[in-house]
Amino acid sequence: MSFNSFGRIFRLTTWGESHGAAIGVVIDGCPPGISLRAEDIQPALDARKPGTSKFVTQRKEPDTVRILSGVFEDDRTDGPRTTGAPISLAIENTDQRSKDYADIRDKYRPGHADITYDAKYGFRDYRGGGRSSARETACRVAAGVVARMALAHVLGGAVSIKACLVQMGPHKINRVRFDWSEIEKNPFWCPDATAANEWEDHLEAARKAGSSMGAVVEIVASGVPAGLGAPVYGKLDADLASAMMSINAAKAVEIGAGIEAAELSGEENADEIRMKDGRPHFLSNRAGGILGGISTGQDIVVRVAVKPTSSILTPRKTITRDGEETEIVTKGRHDPCVGIRGVPVAAAMMALVLADHALLHRGQCG
Amino acid sequence: MSFNSFGRIFRLTTWGESHGAAIGVVIDGCPPGISLRAEDIQPALDARKPGTSKFVTQRKEPDTVRILSGVFEDDRTDGPRTTGAPISLAIENTDQRSKDYADIRDKYRPGHADITYDAKYGFRDYRGGGRSSARETACRVAAGVVARMALAHVLGGAVSIKACLVQMGPHKINRVRFDWSEIEKNPFWCPDATAANEWEDHLEAARKAGSSMGAVVEIVASGVPAGLGAPVYGKLDADLASAMMSINAAKAVEIGAGIEAAELSGEENADEIRMKDGRPHFLSNRAGGILGGISTGQDIVVRVAVKPTSSILTPRKTITRDGEETEIVTKGRHDPCVGIRGVPVAAAMMALVLADHALLHRGQCG
Amino acid sequence: MSFNSFGRIFRLTTWGESHGAAIGVVIDGCPPGISLRAEDIQPALDARKPGTSKFVTQRKEPDTVRILSGVFEDDRTDGPRTTGAPISLAIENTDQRSKDYADIRDKYRPGHADITYDAKYGFRDYRGGGRSSARETACRVAAGVVARMALAHVLGGAVSIKACLVQMGPHKINRVRFDWSEIEKNPFWCPDATAANEWEDHLEAARKAGSSMGAVVEIVASGVPAGLGAPVYGKLDADLASAMMSINAAKAVEIGAGIEAAELSGEENADEIRMKDGRPHFLSNRAGGILGGISTGQDIVVRVAVKPTSSILTPRKTITRDGEETEIVTKGRHDPCVGIRGVPVAAAMMALVLADHALLHRGQCG
Amino acid sequence: MSFNSFGRIFRLTTWGESHGAAIGVVIDGCPPGISLRAEDIQPALDARKPGTSKFVTQRKEPDTVRILSGVFEDDRTDGPRTTGAPISLAIENTDQRSKDYADIRDKYRPGHADITYDAKYGFRDYRGGGRSSARETACRVAAGVVARMALAHVLGGAVSIKACLVQMGPHKINRVRFDWSEIEKNPFWCPDATAANEWEDHLEAARKAGSSMGAVVEIVASGVPAGLGAPVYGKLDADLASAMMSINAAKAVEIGAGIEAAELSGEENADEIRMKDGRPHFLSNRAGGILGGISTGQDIVVRVAVKPTSSILTPRKTITRDGEETEIVTKGRHDPCVGIRGVPVAAAMMALVLADHALLHRGQCG
Repeated sequence: MSFNSFGRIFRLTTWGESHGAAIGVVIDGCPPGISLRAEDIQPALDARKPGTSKFVTQRKEPDTVRILSGVFEDDRTDGPRTTGAPISLAIENTDQRSKDYADIRDKYRPGHADITYDAKYGFRDYRGGGRSSARETACRVAAGVVARMALAHVLGGAVSIKACLVQMGPHKINRVRFDWSEIEKNPFWCPDATAANEWEDHLEAARKAGSSMGAVVEIVASGVPAGLGAPVYGKLDADLASAMMSINAAKAVEIGAGIEAAELSGEENADEIRMKDGRPHFLSNRAGGILGGISTGQDIVVRVAVKPTSSILTPRKTITRDGEETEIVTKGRHDPCVGIRGVPVAAAMMALVLADHALLHRGQCG
Repeated sequence: MSFNSFGRIFRLTTWGESHGAAIGVVIDGCPPGISLRAEDIQPALDARKPGTSKFVTQRKEPDTVRILSGVFEDDRTDGPRTTGAPISLAIENTDQRSKDYADIRDKYRPGHADITYDAKYGFRDYRGGGRSSARETACRVAAGVVARMALAHVLGGAVSIKACLVQMGPHKINRVRFDWSEIEKNPFWCPDATAANEWEDHLEAARKAGSSMGAVVEIVASGVPAGLGAPVYGKLDADLASAMMSINAAKAVEIGAGIEAAELSGEENADEIRMKDGRPHFLSNRAGGILGGISTGQDIVVRVAVKPTSSILTPRKTITRDGEETEIVTKGRHDPCVGIRGVPVAAAMMALVLADHALLHRGQCG
Repeated sequence: MSFNSFGRIFRLTTWGESHGAAIGVVIDGCPPGISLRAEDIQPALDARKPGTSKFVTQRKEPDTVRILSGVFEDDRTDGPRTTGAPISLAIENTDQRSKDYADIRDKYRPGHADITYDAKYGFRDYRGGGRSSARETACRVAAGVVARMALAHVLGGAVSIKACLVQMGPHKINRVRFDWSEIEKNPFWCPDATAANEWEDHLEAARKAGSSMGAVVEIVASGVPAGLGAPVYGKLDADLASAMMSINAAKAVEIGAGIEAAELSGEENADEIRMKDGRPHFLSNRAGGILGGISTGQDIVVRVAVKPTSSILTPRKTITRDGEETEIVTKGRHDPCVGIRGVPVAAAMMALVLADHALLHRGQCG
Repeated sequence: MSFNSFGRIFRLTTWGESHGAAIGVVIDGCPPGISLRAEDIQPALDARKPGTSKFVTQRKEPDTVRILSGVFEDDRTDGPRTTGAPISLAIENTDQRSKDYADIRDKYRPGHADITYDAKYGFRDYRGGGRSSARETACRVAAGVVARMALAHVLGGAVSIKACLVQMGPHKINRVRFDWSEIEKNPFWCPDATAANEWEDHLEAARKAGSSMGAVVEIVASGVPAGLGAPVYGKLDADLASAMMSINAAKAVEIGAGIEAAELSGEENADEIRMKDGRPHFLSNRAGGILGGISTGQDIVVRVAVKPTSSILTPRKTITRDGEETEIVTKGRHDPCVGIRGVPVAAAMMALVLADHALLHRGQCG
C-alpha cells in the first residue's frame, strides 16, 4: 500500500527529490519478452524536459535515463528484452543549485505544499520542493513509455494515446480547428495553430509580469478495446481520476462530457448505438469511452485542469515556520504555466492505467 | 487488490446486486472500542432511501441494516462496541420486481453499463443493472456512518462532513443564499431555498417528459486537521477523486477552485497565509483545503458532476446482444435526477477517505 | 491491505465470530461464467463440520451455506453462473450456547489468543474465542471450493488437491502403507489404515484424560503446471507458508523435504532432471514442486504442524484480566485434536493460493 | 500487489540482478525524523558480505551502499534525517564475471530456479541466477537496518533482534552451551563454541568434496510488546512465515515449538501464566511469543531450515532448454552452506515484519 506506488499488476514506485542525488522509478509487473532499451525511453524525457523553451523552467538537466535492472540481452534474442523482473530506471540530478532556495527555508510559499509537508512530517526537505517537486513526474514519463510498450504487447499495438492543451488561462482552443498534427509545432502542445499564437502573447505577458497561468490538458486514448476496467472501486474512470489528480497542480478531472454532463438532458447524455462493420458503433461520445467503469471501445477522453504555478514574483502574504507573519517573493527558475509540462505526464498516466487494466483483464477474464 | 474494496487501512468491501437476495459491506480496520448499534446506521440509510419523494425512484425497500459481526456487548461496557474484527453489514433486497426488466434482457440501454459488462464478462446480470445498480451505494452510506465514528474516535470529534446539490441541470444555486440549514427542508439537499423551489418545477417537467437531469454535488469537510494525506500517489485529493468518480453517473471531480483554477492568475490562486488564534489562517481557499495532496486545515471542498439518468422514456437507438439494430424505451422505476441520491453517497465517500487517512497518518507519523 | 483478506487477484475477505449471528466470506476476483450452486459448496462444509465423530467438537451446527451474490441464472445458461461480481457466502450460527464460556470472561486460557486480543484491542469478544475461533475456517473451506472451480476453469481441470494427517501426536504414519483411498474411511483423514486404528486408541485416551494432541497435515497438489508463482516476495512457497501459518494452531510449515532439507547433502537435495513423454521429469521431489518460488510441474507438497488444542480439562495456572493469579479448567465442547479439522482447511488454503497464482500468471505472462 | 515488494505500511521494493549494473531497494513508509546515514547501513552489509571467509562465496564485492533519496540534512537538525519520502538505496555490482556462467546458458542446474524461470517467463537471465540470486538479499539486509531504526523510533528502543545457526547439516548445537556472545567469534554465527569447531571440519570436508550442506537459522526478537499482529490473514506468524520462506533456499519455517508442537500434549503446549513485576509472565514459551497471530510480550522465536546449495561440483543429470538429456557440473564461486549468509537476512526479515506491525498497530489501535 505504498503511497509512492501506482497500479495494481503493472505497478510503479517512484523515489527521489528534486535536489537529491537522483530520482528513479521501479516498474514491477511488466510482462517478459518486450524489447526495451534506454534509447526507447529517452525521447519522451527529452520532450518533457525543462529548459526547452522560455515557457518552461530554465533548469538545465540532461535527464539521461539509465536502465539498471529488468532487461537482459540473451544472445538468442534480437537486443535486450524485459525479463519479468522489476525494471529500475534512474535519472541523475545534475543541476541542483539549491542555494536559490535558501529564502524558502523558513517561509511557506502560498499555494505550495511547504506548509502541509511540515504539518504532516514535522519538517521538510525545502530544496526546491523536495518530494513535492514536479521533477518526480520525469519518472512517470519514463514509466509511461514502458507502459505503452506493455499495452502494445498485450493488446497487439492498436492503442494510441495523445495529449494536448485545450485551454491556457481563460483562453480555450477552437474545436473546429483541432488538429493533432499541430501539437508538435508549438511550445504548448496546442492542437489549434491560431490559439497557439495567441497563447504565446498571453503567456509572455504573464511571464514578464512575474505571474503564471493555469491550463487544461486533454488526453485521448484510441483503439482501447471494449471491456477494460472493473466495477465498482477499480473503475477505469476512478483509476484515471486518481492518476490525473495525483499530477502536481491538478485541481479537476473530467471524463467525456465531464462537468457539462450535469447540464445535459437524459436524451443528450445517452450515446445511441448502431452497428458498423459488424461492431457496436456509438453515435456520440458523451461518456468519454467509459460506462459503468468499463471501456466501451470508443475513444477514452479525459481532461485535467491545472492551476497556475504558485511560484510567482509578486510578493504574497505568508508566515514563517515559527508563526511570524511576513511576505515572500519566489525567485528561482519556474514555469509560467506548469500545464505545459503536464501534457506528457498526463499521457503517461493514461498509459499506466490502461496497461494495468489490460493485464488485469487478461488475468481475470482470460 | 480487490476491485470491490476501497481504502487502505480502513477498508470496505461491498457485495450484492440490485435484484439478488441482499447487499452488504464488510468493513475491516475499524478501531476497537467504538460504540456502534444498527440504530446508528439506519437513519443515514433512511435519508438516502428511494421512494421518499416523487423525485427519487419509487422502488420501496425498507433498507433495514443488520450488523452481523464486529461488535460485542461486554457487560462491562455501556452497550455494544466495535472489537477490531471485521464489521459485516447486510441489507436484504425485498422489492425486487425483476419482471420489469425483461425488456432489457437482450437490448443494451444507451448510457448504461449493459454493453460494457457484457464486453468484459461475456454475459451480465440484467436484473436492474445487477452490480452496476446505484443500489450498491446503500452499502457506502452505511459504511460512511462507521467511518464518521472512526474519524471522531481518532481525531476527537472535530470533523463535520456535509453535502448538498449546488446545481441541477443548468440551474446553479446563488452562493449568496447558501445556507446549510436549508438542505433538509427540500427534497434536493439544496442549500438555496429559492433555487430549490425553481428546481422542483424543472425536475417535475423533466419527469413528466420522461426525461432526466444531471446535477453537481458539493461536499465540505470542516475541522480536518492539517497534515492528513500522503504524497505522491496516495494524495488526499487523488483518493477523493477516485472515491467520487467511483459513484454511479459521476463524470467530473473538482477540488477547491476546480476547473476554474485553470483561469486564475498565479496571484489569485495562491491562498495567502496569516496567523489567527496562534494558528495558520488562509485568506482564501482556492486550494479546497489540500496542498501537495495533504490537508491544510481549511475546509476540504469537493464537487462532483453527475450525469442525467440514462433510463428515460424517450425511445433511443440501440442494438441487441446479437448485434441487431433496434430501439429501446426504459420503463421501470427510475430517478429523474440521480444526483439527489448521490448527495449522501458523496458525503459517505468523503468520510471513508478521511477515516482512512486519519488512521494512516497515526500509523506513519505517530 | 485488509487483515481479514487473503489473495491478490482471487481474493477472499472473511467476517464473523463464533458466537455472533453468522459468519461469511466475500470472494472477489472469481472469473465469470463458472457454474456455481450452494450444493457445490455444501459437501465440503459437511466434511469439515464439527460433531461428525467423538473426535471433533460436539457443537452441532447445520452449517448451511447461502450464496447471496455474484451468481446469476440467465435463462440462456444451464444453471447459475458466476458473473465476475463479488460472491458473498454466509453461514448462520445456530448453536451458540455462549453461557458455557462465562468462566473465561475474566480469565485468560493458557495457549489461547485471549490474552493477546486483550493486549491489542483493549477488550475482547470472549464468546468462544470470538474472531480467533476455528469457526472462521468454515469460510475458508467454502471459498476453497470456489477456488478449485476457478482453478479448473483457468487451467483446464487438471489440478487435484488432497490432504491428510501424516502424524498424530508423536505417532507418524508408515509411508509404505500410504494410500489416498483410506482417508475417507477413518475419522482422521489418515492415509495409513493401520495407523488410523492406533490413533483411535491414542486419541480416545487423550480425550478421556481431558488432554489433547497435536498433528501434522500434509497437502499435495498434483497437475499444477510449471511456471506458477512469482519471485521474490510473492513466491508460491512464501504464499503457501503464509496461508498455512494463518490456520489456527499452526506452528510450522514445510515445503517438500522441509526441515529435513537442512540435513541433506547438496547431491541429495538437487532433484535430477530427465525427459519423459517430451516433458521435463524429475527423478526426486525434495523441492516439493517449487524452485525459486515457481512451480516445477511436480507435485506441490506442503506439511503443516498443528499444536494440541489448548482447551483442556487439566487445571492450568493463569491470571485474570485484572492481574490476579488463578487457575483455569476449560470446559465446553472442544476437539481433542484440532489437526483433524485442519485437513480440509489446509486443502482449501492450497486451492486459494493456486487459484490466485493461476490468474496472476495469466495476467502477467499471458 | 507488487511481487518484489514486502510489507504493508513499512514497505520495501527490491530490484536488480546478480550480474546487472546494480541492485537496490526502495523503502516506503519509514517514519520521518529518524537519523540515517549510509554509515549506519554499511556494517550490516559488510557482515553479510561474501568473501569474508572460505565458507562463503569468493565473489568480491565492496557492496557499498548509497542513499539516493528520503533523507535530508536540515541545518537545524543534527545530521541527516528521514523525511517520510521513499528511501532509495543502491549497491553497485562490481565483480560480475558473467563468463563463468556460460555453461549454464542452455542447461538447467538441478535444484535451481533456472527451469522454473524459463517455464514462467519464456526465457531467463542466466547470469548467475539473475533475479533468483542470493545477491538480492543484500537489499533486505540494508532495509533491515532501516527497519530496526523505525522499530526503535516507534517502540522506544526496547526491541533486540538476534539470529544464529543452530544446525549445520545433521549437526545441531547443544542448547546447554547456547551463548549469544559466541556468534561473532566464528564464521558460522554459531552460538555454541564447541559445535562451531566441529562444523568447521564438516563444512571444510563438504567444500573439498565439491558438496554442500543445509542449515537451520534461529531468529529471536526480545522486547517486543504484547499486542502486535493482526488476525486472521495478517497474523504475525503468518507474515513471518511468508518473510522467511521468501529467503533463498528456505524449505521450512517454525514458530516456537514448531514442528515439535505436534508431539506435545495439551498440558505441555499451553504456556502457563503468572504475574511478575506487575506484568503477565509466562512459565514457558512453546508459543514462540505469538498467540492467535498476536505477540504475547515474550521472545518471538522463529527457525528457518535452509537446503544445501544446489551448485555443486558433482555431475548431475539434467536437460537443456531444448529438451536434451545431459549432465552438469556447476563451477563458479558458491557458498558450501548458504545458511550462513542467511543468518543476517533472516534477522532483517524479522525486523521488517516487526516494524510493519508496530506501525500498523499504532495506526489501528492508537
